[in-house]
Amino acid sequence: MNILVVGSIAFDTVETPHQSFLDSPGGSALYFSNAASFFAPVNVVGVVGEDFDLKVIDFGKNRPINFDGLYTEKGKTFRWGGRYYDDPNKRDTLFTHLNVFENFKPEIPKHFRNSDIVFLANIDPDLQLQVLNQITDPKLVVTDTMNFWISGKRSALDEVIKQSNIIILNDEETQQLTGETNLTRGGQKILEMGPDVVVVKKGEHGAILMSKDSYFVAPAFPVQKVVDPTGAGDSFAGGFVGYLAENEGFEDSELRKAIIYGTVVASFCVEDFSFRRLAGLKKEELNKRYSSIKKITTY
Amino acid sequence: MNILVVGSIAFDTVETPHQSFLDSPGGSALYFSNAASFFAPVNVVGVVGEDFDLKVIDFGKNRPINFDGLYTEKGKTFRWGGRYYDDPNKRDTLFTHLNVFENFKPEIPKHFRNSDIVFLANIDPDLQLQVLNQITDPKLVVTDTMNFWISGKRSALDEVIKQSNIIILNDEETQQLTGETNLTRGGQKILEMGPDVVVVKKGEHGAILMSKDSYFVAPAFPVQKVVDPTGAGDSFAGGFVGYLAENEGFEDSELRKAIIYGTVVASFCVEDFSFRRLAGLKKEELNKRYSSIKKITTY
Repeated sequence: MNILVVGSIAFDTVETPHQSFLDSPGGSALYFSNAASFFAPVNVVGVVGEDFDLKVIDFGKNRPINFDGLYTEKGKTFRWGGRYYDDPNKRDTLFTHLNVFENFKPEIPKHFRNSDIVFLANIDPDLQLQVLNQITDPKLVVTDTMNFWISGKRSALDEVIKQSNIIILNDEETQQLTGETNLTRGGQKILEMGPDVVVVKKGEHGAILMSKDSYFVAPAFPVQKVVDPTGAGDSFAGGFVGYLAENEGFEDSELRKAIIYGTVVASFCVEDFSFRRLAGLKKEELNKRYSSIKKITTY
Repeated sequence: MNILVVGSIAFDTVETPHQSFLDSPGGSALYFSNAASFFAPVNVVGVVGEDFDLKVIDFGKNRPINFDGLYTEKGKTFRWGGRYYDDPNKRDTLFTHLNVFENFKPEIPKHFRNSDIVFLANIDPDLQLQVLNQITDPKLVVTDTMNFWISGKRSALDEVIKQSNIIILNDEETQQLTGETNLTRGGQKILEMGPDVVVVKKGEHGAILMSKDSYFVAPAFPVQKVVDPTGAGDSFAGGFVGYLAENEGFEDSELRKAIIYGTVVASFCVEDFSFRRLAGLKKEELNKRYSSIKKITTY
């Protein structure tokens, strides 16, 4: 199966306790497609400014990423700046310059409209709905969002959630969306909003997968030195959705394995800044770390 | 195998967002022994005041707990007061009245000195050393501690850790003891201090078991309504040590199962206040929840 992703493409400026990185390529669509392309073909829709050259990004060899939906507009590319702390679950946004992203209206190229799986990365829910209106009978819709849209565009977001099969959120977003501090109760409330499956990411504490009939707890891989947490969530989603596309099944047993592959890709992503670690990565390294996680969870 | 526990016996006053409980029986030695006695015989050493009547506590039927080491002194029993919030990992201590516990010098009854496993609950490390000096060639020493002793009695604590086989700490204590925010690196530093195994408890995020050759991540059981978190850590330790005693083996595969049984007992403990939930609990309920945890972690 192939995957369509619609999301941001950005230059990220990142400060960590140990290093700073200025204007590294980033954004949800790039992290997602990079991660998912280990498993299946990915069609990208997004917008960049004239200052962005796709050629500077190393996506590794022969990864099936199709950039026919990448639009270049007059002006600058979206820029995000953030600061991380010793606690990798803590993050401050220093600035957000939307630039060309401000007027982005996703137009899905005709040959992308029958993609099998759609991943709606964290963008304005009104745009997410525009995407859903353009695509033809997808087999699976997976959606991400963030605090900004939960508080600012709630009714559009509710409609997106209703039309999605799988929602991926972090713990804080789950609490914000449902008013529940208990993530299990929060997840159940989200299921009542329409989707079949909810995935709650808990950073270094792993992730929970919930559906009406199933509950699965996945650990994080114990990364000893997190260099740059940027993109962890999107590469998690990329590994998760990529595995589902590769294996062409969405039943509970596949979803569980997909969560572990998402965990694996995210754990590599944070080991270096921007796409550095993902670029040179091989599929067998992913499989090896998958086995390592099996070892640390089996009893 | 049988177990010796030396720890506190207390009256707890607990405030939660929903309820308050005044002077409920508690303390590390009672929570631990209550939990461990589902699996193996437990010998308790501790001190109470004249206001404490063991008969008011319901430990369930025929649990093998030996109170020959319970000393009654003139004065009042140790009292602790705490407040919990909607986030069950957050806790404030409102008061600590040591009372008879202030002059406690643990004297291990002769027939307790050859207990197979020793659990040093969270008490002054000088007293923990006094216990270790009185016992005869234990097969396993398991030790708990807290922030107060890490900052206030570091050299005695280091000696206790050196003489212990297994250290059980929570995430904050691990960070405080090692200066490492990364729990994996923190755990490795503790292993370098002498013990064979470190268990790091992460509350609702589960626990990690680390040794030189092994790393195991256990989830928490998703309790939907936490009534009173008091005693969760000590009942976790009780289930963990109890299982090891029952199965008479300390190899990695047994340690992993023991962590899950610790998780199981702790998850029941917090479902009601004081010992209410543990009192009426049956072994088959423990086994059933063990299977539930297997289901939510298998892929």
